[in-house]
Amino acid sequence: MSLPGQLNPSPRLLLGPGPSDVHPRVLSVMTTPLMGHLDPQFLVLMNEVQGMLRDAFLTKNPFTLPISATGMAGMETCLVNLLEPGDKMVACVKGFFGTRIFDVAQRTGADITRLDVPWGQVFDLNVVRETLKKVRPKVLGMVHAETSTGAWQPIEELGKMCHEFDTLLVVDAVTSLGCVPLKVDEWEIDAIFSCSQKGLSCPPGLSPVSFSPRALDVIKNRKSPVQSWYLDMQMVSKYWSEDRHYHHTAPITMIYAIREGLRILLEEGLPARWERHTKNHKALKAGLVAMGLEYSAVEGHQLPQLNAVKIPQGIDDLVVRKKLLNDFGIEFGGGLGDFRGKVWRIGLMGHNSQPKNVLLALSALEQCLQSVGYEVSPGAGVVAANKAYLA
Amino acid sequence: MSLPGQLNPSPRLLLGPGPSDVHPRVLSVMTTPLMGHLDPQFLVLMNEVQGMLRDAFLTKNPFTLPISATGMAGMETCLVNLLEPGDKMVACVKGFFGTRIFDVAQRTGADITRLDVPWGQVFDLNVVRETLKKVRPKVLGMVHAETSTGAWQPIEELGKMCHEFDTLLVVDAVTSLGCVPLKVDEWEIDAIFSCSQKGLSCPPGLSPVSFSPRALDVIKNRKSPVQSWYLDMQMVSKYWSEDRHYHHTAPITMIYAIREGLRILLEEGLPARWERHTKNHKALKAGLVAMGLEYSAVEGHQLPQLNAVKIPQGIDDLVVRKKLLNDFGIEFGGGLGDFRGKVWRIGLMGHNSQPKNVLLALSALEQCLQSVGYEVSPGAGVVAANKAYLA
Repeated sequence: MSLPGQLNPSPRLLLGPGPSDVHPRVLSVMTTPLMGHLDPQFLVLMNEVQGMLRDAFLTKNPFTLPISATGMAGMETCLVNLLEPGDKMVACVKGFFGTRIFDVAQRTGADITRLDVPWGQVFDLNVVRETLKKVRPKVLGMVHAETSTGAWQPIEELGKMCHEFDTLLVVDAVTSLGCVPLKVDEWEIDAIFSCSQKGLSCPPGLSPVSFSPRALDVIKNRKSPVQSWYLDMQMVSKYWSEDRHYHHTAPITMIYAIREGLRILLEEGLPARWERHTKNHKALKAGLVAMGLEYSAVEGHQLPQLNAVKIPQGIDDLVVRKKLLNDFGIEFGGGLGDFRGKVWRIGLMGHNSQPKNVLLALSALEQCLQSVGYEVSPGAGVVAANKAYLA
Repeated sequence: MSLPGQLNPSPRLLLGPGPSDVHPRVLSVMTTPLMGHLDPQFLVLMNEVQGMLRDAFLTKNPFTLPISATGMAGMETCLVNLLEPGDKMVACVKGFFGTRIFDVAQRTGADITRLDVPWGQVFDLNVVRETLKKVRPKVLGMVHAETSTGAWQPIEELGKMCHEFDTLLVVDAVTSLGCVPLKVDEWEIDAIFSCSQKGLSCPPGLSPVSFSPRALDVIKNRKSPVQSWYLDMQMVSKYWSEDRHYHHTAPITMIYAIREGLRILLEEGLPARWERHTKNHKALKAGLVAMGLEYSAVEGHQLPQLNAVKIPQGIDDLVVRKKLLNDFGIEFGGGLGDFRGKVWRIGLMGHNSQPKNVLLALSALEQCLQSVGYEVSPGAGVVAANKAYLA
């Protein structure tokens, strides 16, 4: 083949479900020349990243580190390290990513009980309690921020409840870390995974995980080897601890990136970060509702960082998203699975949760909707958003 | 904890077993703002990367793509997709990474026959043939460039031999791609994996793989699901093909990087690249030998890109490498496994295979060796290297 030309893409504003735009400070550290994965300088950076990750997760878990792959590998890491063939697990499914927990867990040979609520809803913890009581699983898997529906699952009390039944709680925090409150120790979460490309405003490529001492005990007492060599936490953790035992070559540049992303997060402070996400969400929501759009997640459980709205009757998903992308360089997410063609997912994550993005998203969406004949009171979205900001 | 300061590492020259230094052009594309993993612009880049990877591997295999994790995940990908419980495999072990093929394959539940030669040697293909005849394995695993010993395994005829016995050939090309001749189709290799951070001079984080049509058939006709969800090629390939079926979020920035690394490789051209590695190796070797150092790999099978030499009697590994790092910013690799404390591994990979690095490595090593009392004829290394270049 003839060689492709120099990389020169049209700029985008990534207001989808992730990746979101990388913070400029993170972009700039990515040109830092490499060092070796066993360089004394790098070992210091590893400690710094682990320390900041603990602060971001609000945990003291020593076993907190970034997996050298994307968020889905973090999900697999948590499940394959805790489960062995024949173990019982309950997978709570309220959307596409809950289904994935079920699918990934199934490959361990564990005996999985699937608990479903309709997409867009969240679990009533009393129902979960009944299932825990009946099944007595080793592990329960729950998605905190269901990226496919925009539903925000309350999990503050879930860890404590799981522990009453000697169950380990695994939480999918891919879309929640760095956006909404997440308190690993206080909420008694045993294993948690996230990603680099959403609330942390880094490129995709890492999956931060954390395991409680209780989870660690389970891992240490496994009867069978973990089915994945690459994701085997007993080996990976020997590199991410004082042993510094070589396992695989760490993705150095991505470690530079997440270090900067975490610095930015902690400079702002978690409460300020959460508050910012809430404020911009309220304005965006006011605008979307004023334009006649409805959220797909139930009222009271809508994620600030991921606004999933139903596509109005008769409006073509792709025509609108294509126009947004081509005329404005704005990316919204389409629907996944059951929601394909039925919802748009508008992300305001990490660095991207900014008033200017809210106003631009609303006004550009207005033009795109008007162009396909959807009737919207001119300016309604922006007017409502501005009102919300000034309230 | 208090926040760590701005990233500001001392510069390094990475002359170890990898990562090697990133090409400046690759570094510069890493600040390119993100786009979404389903953006039409990104789909074009994916096609370009696949096309160039095929050219780099000298294959027409449609099923050629970069795995979203480091080289060891590429190894796992090849093995877990081809093997099922009870399958027979032969793992050829001539160093640390051959042992890893054995270890990773064992987790599939396959029945593994381990064939060993002493570290530093290579396999006589007649011996391999005897084993193929006796075992009739489904898969044979062989390391092309054994990074722990610097041994270069001839594999030109191995694929054809494997196919006589209906065996699939899996090749570890982590340290060979972009450095020495590697001809996937001509050599009838069925599954191959490499990495981004050696011959391609990109950061670590991707593992290019390629599967032959014969290997694909085996994957398509599996009886059991692949034990790893993240590395399941049937699913991953649906994203890296016209389907564009979402599997996981691609590490966008790393795809930018490998695209540039591949452009640089193919602009130079494979034969010129291989020739450059040979030329610089010959000069380095002349210098090292003139300084009284001995290669750990047998004569005639020494990798140009990875020069493993025995640490002279009485010389402390760490003292010398620490001085190299602190006084010159140069990283050499230490020994792995059986070779720990016994060899240094000097890499001249991709962009780093340059005369200036050869001369600097030799003269800095001379000073470090002199400082610990090793007697070396002053200037011998550089003199011999210059002579080799001018020959």
